[in-house]
Amino acid sequence: MSVTDLIPVRMNEGTLEILDQTLLPLEEKFIKIESVEALYDAIKKLKVRGAPAIGVAAGYGVYIAAKDAVSRSARESSAGSASDSIFEIMAEIERDADYLISARPTAVNLKWAVDRVMAALRDAVSRNAVIRNTVIRDAVSRSEKATGDPIDADLPEIALAEAEAIRKEDFDACMGMAEYGLSLLEPGMGLLTHCNAGVLATAGYGTALAPIHLGQERGYDFKVFSDETRPLLQGARLTSWELAKNGVDVTLICDNMASIVMKSGKVDAVLVGCDRMAANGDGANKIGTSAVAILAKEYGIPFYMFVPTSTIDLETETGADIVIEERDPDEIAAMWYEERMAPEGVKTYNPAFDVTDAKYITAVVTEKGIVYPPFKDGLARIKNETEN
Amino acid sequence: MSVTDLIPVRMNEGTLEILDQTLLPLEEKFIKIESVEALYDAIKKLKVRGAPAIGVAAGYGVYIAAKDAVSRSARESSAGSASDSIFEIMAEIERDADYLISARPTAVNLKWAVDRVMAALRDAVSRNAVIRNTVIRDAVSRSEKATGDPIDADLPEIALAEAEAIRKEDFDACMGMAEYGLSLLEPGMGLLTHCNAGVLATAGYGTALAPIHLGQERGYDFKVFSDETRPLLQGARLTSWELAKNGVDVTLICDNMASIVMKSGKVDAVLVGCDRMAANGDGANKIGTSAVAILAKEYGIPFYMFVPTSTIDLETETGADIVIEERDPDEIAAMWYEERMAPEGVKTYNPAFDVTDAKYITAVVTEKGIVYPPFKDGLARIKNETEN
Repeated sequence: MSVTDLIPVRMNEGTLEILDQTLLPLEEKFIKIESVEALYDAIKKLKVRGAPAIGVAAGYGVYIAAKDAVSRSARESSAGSASDSIFEIMAEIERDADYLISARPTAVNLKWAVDRVMAALRDAVSRNAVIRNTVIRDAVSRSEKATGDPIDADLPEIALAEAEAIRKEDFDACMGMAEYGLSLLEPGMGLLTHCNAGVLATAGYGTALAPIHLGQERGYDFKVFSDETRPLLQGARLTSWELAKNGVDVTLICDNMASIVMKSGKVDAVLVGCDRMAANGDGANKIGTSAVAILAKEYGIPFYMFVPTSTIDLETETGADIVIEERDPDEIAAMWYEERMAPEGVKTYNPAFDVTDAKYITAVVTEKGIVYPPFKDGLARIKNETEN
Repeated sequence: MSVTDLIPVRMNEGTLEILDQTLLPLEEKFIKIESVEALYDAIKKLKVRGAPAIGVAAGYGVYIAAKDAVSRSARESSAGSASDSIFEIMAEIERDADYLISARPTAVNLKWAVDRVMAALRDAVSRNAVIRNTVIRDAVSRSEKATGDPIDADLPEIALAEAEAIRKEDFDACMGMAEYGLSLLEPGMGLLTHCNAGVLATAGYGTALAPIHLGQERGYDFKVFSDETRPLLQGARLTSWELAKNGVDVTLICDNMASIVMKSGKVDAVLVGCDRMAANGDGANKIGTSAVAILAKEYGIPFYMFVPTSTIDLETETGADIVIEERDPDEIAAMWYEERMAPEGVKTYNPAFDVTDAKYITAVVTEKGIVYPPFKDGLARIKNETEN
């Protein structure tokens, strides 16, 4: 058992496989994704979740779309139909790409990854390069006018290479956060985490859980408390599962037990992920994160937020500008339970995220380094460094 | 619909009835309790819960025990058996009383109420008073030597009168907390509560919820947020039910949403109950209460703990001396859910209570008045006042 065995998105002999997280923790099953429709369904139904993992899966989704479009064109051509122009094939891939993006319209990484692989394809086409093995009526004649270097690859290969690059970058970013995070911790520490910012949300060691997994490999012997994270129970279903699978000593608690656990002296640091960090260091993350941060401050426990630089949003000035998604009341009042646990028609408020004010954050851990308060300059510097 | 219709323990034409709270919020059903065994079962299975409500029900339980013992004795006597001595009858009632107390050994009010009704019976017997209608071989001859005033009542009547006194005192205590609590609030305020310290836990308006119900009658138009209160969901199942039944504007949230709701400015005061308050003002209450208190302090919101004087324990110096009960892991990992929501064998920590430090409590509301910090002297004064 190694951490990488838990990575929920993988290529296996040319086929995309994802770990169906809706079955966890009861069943561990990788499902083969062989069509764009199957991937759309998997994203929509949260079989794959976590912004980075969705992005990686979607990158491979464009590869599937390219393979499908090219082989359909080849089939039709060998059956005697007029073969497609490269533009017709690209239009078909584009339609699939848009369809994939529509599976979860608010997930930034989904659109970002799809756009990035599409851009690689468009770039290859626009350079008029030789597109090997692609049955395109005018490709050869257009390649004669090519201005760029010939590319010895077909469209699916180009898409696959870009998707692989996204996956590898995500893996590396996780490893960066693992190392920087671990530098803040000591062997034997008690740690507390909220929601799932782990392997299951990425294509690597995770974000907030990355130093825990890496520490496990290095004999750090952490004692981890996992908030169950109502209403969707990612802590119970996913975090306690993935940590236990990797042999980490993990104890599941209800969200409202973090205070007594901290008071007892069993928590030396809090590690959480981040969905979006504003320029001033305010960080939106799973609902309840801000309460954990305030408790940590009250008990004098360092609170570390794990923020890939892609999640730093310098355009958003403060947390007040972050719009908080509200979700279905039944997630609180009825979901998971055999019978409704709240009266029929009860009014509920179900925000999916909250904003942790920068003043409660001890340090922001990115894949490029650690940022300390005041955050404004440090976040801008590390974000721009990444983009240059 | 009035608040008193919700009171979960009541006498109806001579029969004890309790609202079966295990069926809430799906079904509202008062069940008749016609034997000591049925009451034991109801207490054991949490059909009746909340320390004051259990106490009141148990008081009536001794009445049922007395009625049973006396009528069995009468039946046997009229069938020609030798009739029992009053001591035999008392011994039988005592056995039932001990059995009732064993239903929930840690519930202080249960033992307190049973002991109190038993004391009333013992007192009557020891005074050698006339016990009317009681078929007792030696009662009349002993009454000739009576040193006290003759009592024109039988044993069941004496028990019933004491049980009624307990019920009435609890009702009055709730009303006292309702009035003192309401004096701290303004119409239209947003309030937040945790667990269920309401009508359903008492034989009156509740403790922390008492001013909300009273305010509703007086047109205060509060907006109440109810924490669902994992793992047993008393907020979802009971608090949101009883407040909505009384027409109060109530919104159910997960425990981890209290921070975002407070931050939004929608909460003007926090009202919670108390299971045991130490001499210095540290208060043990349902798990998660201390987190709510810390958040309230951070957001500058007053935090009021509702503490009947019977709950003030001057023998316990500080909260550190209060032992916290740990409960079954499956309450977190499996209970309520259709399927387990945490991996099989996951380690959990499930404390039923936590201690809110006195420093986070703005004021303690009792039925005799409001105590402000520093609490030590004020709590001792109000407690001793009650006992004198």
